Amino acid sequence: MSQSAPASWIADRSQAFDSSGIRKVFDLAASLEDPINLSIGQPDFDVPESVQLACVEAIRQGKNAYSPSQGIGALRERLQSDIDQRYGHADRDVFISSGTSGGLVLAILSLVNPGDEVIIFDPYFVMYSPLVQLVGGQPVLIDTYPDFRIDLNQVEAAISDRTKLILFNSPANPTGVTPSRDEIVGLAQLADRHNVALLSDEIYSQFVYDGDFVSPADTNPQTIVIDGFSKSHAMTGWRVGWVHGPSEVIQTMIKLQQYSFVCAPQPAQWAGLAALDVEMTQHRHDYQAKRDLLVDGLRDHYEFTTPGGAFYLFPKAPGGSGTDFVTRAIEHGLLVIPSSIFSRHDSHFRISYAASDETIERGIQVLRRLAASA
Amino acid sequence: MSQSAPASWIADRSQAFDSSGIRKVFDLAASLEDPINLSIGQPDFDVPESVQLACVEAIRQGKNAYSPSQGIGALRERLQSDIDQRYGHADRDVFISSGTSGGLVLAILSLVNPGDEVIIFDPYFVMYSPLVQLVGGQPVLIDTYPDFRIDLNQVEAAISDRTKLILFNSPANPTGVTPSRDEIVGLAQLADRHNVALLSDEIYSQFVYDGDFVSPADTNPQTIVIDGFSKSHAMTGWRVGWVHGPSEVIQTMIKLQQYSFVCAPQPAQWAGLAALDVEMTQHRHDYQAKRDLLVDGLRDHYEFTTPGGAFYLFPKAPGGSGTDFVTRAIEHGLLVIPSSIFSRHDSHFRISYAASDETIERGIQVLRRLAASA
Repeated sequence: MSQSAPASWIADRSQAFDSSGIRKVFDLAASLEDPINLSIGQPDFDVPESVQLACVEAIRQGKNAYSPSQGIGALRERLQSDIDQRYGHADRDVFISSGTSGGLVLAILSLVNPGDEVIIFDPYFVMYSPLVQLVGGQPVLIDTYPDFRIDLNQVEAAISDRTKLILFNSPANPTGVTPSRDEIVGLAQLADRHNVALLSDEIYSQFVYDGDFVSPADTNPQTIVIDGFSKSHAMTGWRVGWVHGPSEVIQTMIKLQQYSFVCAPQPAQWAGLAALDVEMTQHRHDYQAKRDLLVDGLRDHYEFTTPGGAFYLFPKAPGGSGTDFVTRAIEHGLLVIPSSIFSRHDSHFRISYAASDETIERGIQVLRRLAASA
Repeated sequence: MSQSAPASWIADRSQAFDSSGIRKVFDLAASLEDPINLSIGQPDFDVPESVQLACVEAIRQGKNAYSPSQGIGALRERLQSDIDQRYGHADRDVFISSGTSGGLVLAILSLVNPGDEVIIFDPYFVMYSPLVQLVGGQPVLIDTYPDFRIDLNQVEAAISDRTKLILFNSPANPTGVTPSRDEIVGLAQLADRHNVALLSDEIYSQFVYDGDFVSPADTNPQTIVIDGFSKSHAMTGWRVGWVHGPSEVIQTMIKLQQYSFVCAPQPAQWAGLAALDVEMTQHRHDYQAKRDLLVDGLRDHYEFTTPGGAFYLFPKAPGGSGTDFVTRAIEHGLLVIPSSIFSRHDSHFRISYAASDETIERGIQVLRRLAASA
């Protein structure tokens, strides 16, 4: 039998996901024995006790079969009630997705035709651009360097007849930046004026340190919002999130879920219901302190915008190349991520402070040495 | 703000998922108080005790974060070793998917370009045809009525220059039919001869009642195999399956998983590892007895092919219309599914015997009355 066939079978769309550049960096990282790991995109605390117990209880009660595509009724009703109370929109439905990534995949499948343009702010969450390309859409990148603010004129200029969707993420991965209320309100109005769908990825909404969290859905009632438990309750491996927005969009996403994700894991959905009653303020305070620790430690050594949320800092790479700098950092036992995987620009790097204070301190020491020797 | 925008935003591909016909039937079903439910595609037993406990232990040990995209090492290594022992293929990798549906989605995304043809045996598992259309592929249906055997001449005649993939499923949903060893070997050889990828959906491999389970991968070493715990261990709501095949295909699927499903739920993966050591023979015997109960009860009243596996029976609808017959059945308190959702033909209906013996008995009584009054 022929042995070379499989290579010729691979569909073209998989080319949108070329990660050969970053693989070199990760291969190098894998060789480290006891790295200072500031590369992780998930909290350093565990799932809260009561949430773990709710999951265990669901399992032991036999809640182990498929849930409805849209999620278990109890969680949906609770979220719907919270959402109605907050937004009071006439036409806003919610369903349970397999994490925020699952929600994002279904939103893009539901909205983006081949050839449609999708506006993405660069730097962006690593999935945005490849997912748009996966369905044959055209990412239109808006450069937000050096301060990562939203320039509404630039957005308006980027809108064409083919623009279907704007992907928005605040607090942002990888920069940690939270655009101002004026920027967010302006973006929401702009989307409405041009009849462009606006998707707000709010996975870091619980991690805002300066001022209140602002959603574009406060201004534009047709905003599609994705949120989840992964970051707020350390449930990254449990795959539960939710999406709310105009019923037509949500119903389409549920229909597509039926033929893809099927449903979010049922026991974890029950755990999600319990998670909504867990007070996480202390964790937010802890993470704010971690941000301050890192910002204070690097302020005089690196050029960066102080992040208002999430758990990332996104400094300019000394020497100009993010990849070269990260390679050097790894040689010094420190794991961080070059901007090239989030951006067209290979000029920055991402530090995650979702780590113990001790690890952050060790990271600061190495980063200071690296800056001094650049 | 305009309220009609969202309807105009919906992408064309969602049209591949029109389920308005079946919705009428399900709406009717939802009105029943205490239905005789023979419509369910999942076992009527619960997750085995030791598997539940393994999941609980993983949660309590804090194994709650993202796993690697390809799955936890322990489960992958165990499956790889089992697969190597069974097949001994030089080039066969495995990864952990979010259920068999997740594996199917990733396989189709990885293999099917827009315009590519995919051969599907009609009737088919409900996701096959829509998923192919979702990525712009062209389903080429091969009619297997009335006995649901595989006619290799018909398959060969259906292969064109654009044929990329054959979707194969034995034991089959919705018919329960298991093609003969000769048919399976012939299909495997045919795929190889024409350099067409062959995907074998083996989710019902543990439910074979007459003879041994036969995989086309026994004959064609480039077969892509999808399997999972959902049906064998009643873990439908836990979303864990696995896929094995040529490394080039598997590596592409893992790459796409990274940008979509992310990973299968981590605690459920640890449970899957425990599930591999649970003896399920008794359940197979139970289901074989349920099949015999149903087949014996309906033999003189309905026209059908006796199924060799899975937990479905697929009789011809008295009166000729599956939808009309199912509507009548529901009026008599019995839930079954019309063939129209699995097929171009609305001439049959699917009975699931994944139910208690008492429910099956009650179903037989109603079905006999319906046959007598047709």
